Amino acid sequence: MRILPRSFEKLINEFAKLPGIGPKSASRLTFYLFKLPNHQIEVFAESLRQLKQNVFSCSQCFNMAEKAICEVCSDKRRNQNLIAVVEDTLDVLAIEQTGKYEGLYHVLGGVISPIDGIGPENLKIAELVERVKKLKEQSTDIELILATNPSLEGDATVMYIQKLLRPLNVKLSRLARGIPVGGDLEYTDESTLTDALNYRKEI
Amino acid sequence: MRILPRSFEKLINEFAKLPGIGPKSASRLTFYLFKLPNHQIEVFAESLRQLKQNVFSCSQCFNMAEKAICEVCSDKRRNQNLIAVVEDTLDVLAIEQTGKYEGLYHVLGGVISPIDGIGPENLKIAELVERVKKLKEQSTDIELILATNPSLEGDATVMYIQKLLRPLNVKLSRLARGIPVGGDLEYTDESTLTDALNYRKEI
Repeated sequence: MRILPRSFEKLINEFAKLPGIGPKSASRLTFYLFKLPNHQIEVFAESLRQLKQNVFSCSQCFNMAEKAICEVCSDKRRNQNLIAVVEDTLDVLAIEQTGKYEGLYHVLGGVISPIDGIGPENLKIAELVERVKKLKEQSTDIELILATNPSLEGDATVMYIQKLLRPLNVKLSRLARGIPVGGDLEYTDESTLTDALNYRKEI
Repeated sequence: MRILPRSFEKLINEFAKLPGIGPKSASRLTFYLFKLPNHQIEVFAESLRQLKQNVFSCSQCFNMAEKAICEVCSDKRRNQNLIAVVEDTLDVLAIEQTGKYEGLYHVLGGVISPIDGIGPENLKIAELVERVKKLKEQSTDIELILATNPSLEGDATVMYIQKLLRPLNVKLSRLARGIPVGGDLEYTDESTLTDALNYRKEI
């Protein structure tokens, strides 16, 4: 026998498909929403519907944008010769939130991961090489920060890009590795601690 | 500067309003949905929109229903003289899932809680008394299981209902209290253990 109305079960199913939401939370969310006034549910549904509306991919950096060229790329006060190469938009967000970065971005759309069937051709790597080539025609002082995550895949992607860019003779850098602020020596893994020792800073 | 498209921020805000979902999870859910094909998002939005459609309150037991009388109440094979009085539909669901209950329900819609401004008049208590009165005209062997949660409010609600029903002279019972299956004596609170001792079962 069905105890919950069909419309409840449908929404519970939809919630349960989302990452990190189990069947119990899905029920709880559905009951919570049911008690909200109609117009609030309507606003939620409309936000879902409009998620992909007016979202473009910036034609220069492939970040998500509301125009053909994103706000970062069209900001002429930024250093046009400094590009942080990142995996996705959330990384752009994280770097922007520091308020300390003045350059542009290049969003790869992931990292090379043979296990997931993602090869270089699925990423915006060719576009990056083209972009750097064009930039070289205007300036000699170009730096690329290869800011992928410190994972095996991130490292492999960096090596691949490095090889492709070597002939272009541009400055390449990576984000420093070390102990995170608020971290604890005792609980820091070996390779992070090794990096922190090797790249120690004179004070 | 806005890094995320407006439509992203809107949906992140909507998710972050839900109980148990913080801003980080809200972003993660939004990014996840963005990568889904349009029609899947459409299904989700439609489920939200239809949440309150065709959901009625059963005119007898006040459980949620898809018709004026819910499926439990209209099932004539069930014991019509046994009523479990519960707080909400989720409790009906929990009891039904045991597969061991043969009676009907009465959904109060909450418990008496002066702190939240919920008095007896906000609950389906008067309707319960009416229902029992009518039932008494047809049968003398009526039992009500007052199955509220074992909380202060649940107990207060039971006492209130008990007082109202005393003149009607029907059998009243409560769910047994004791150690839950899989529980641990060592970690059982005093009042549960006291109940478990007092209501020990001969074997």
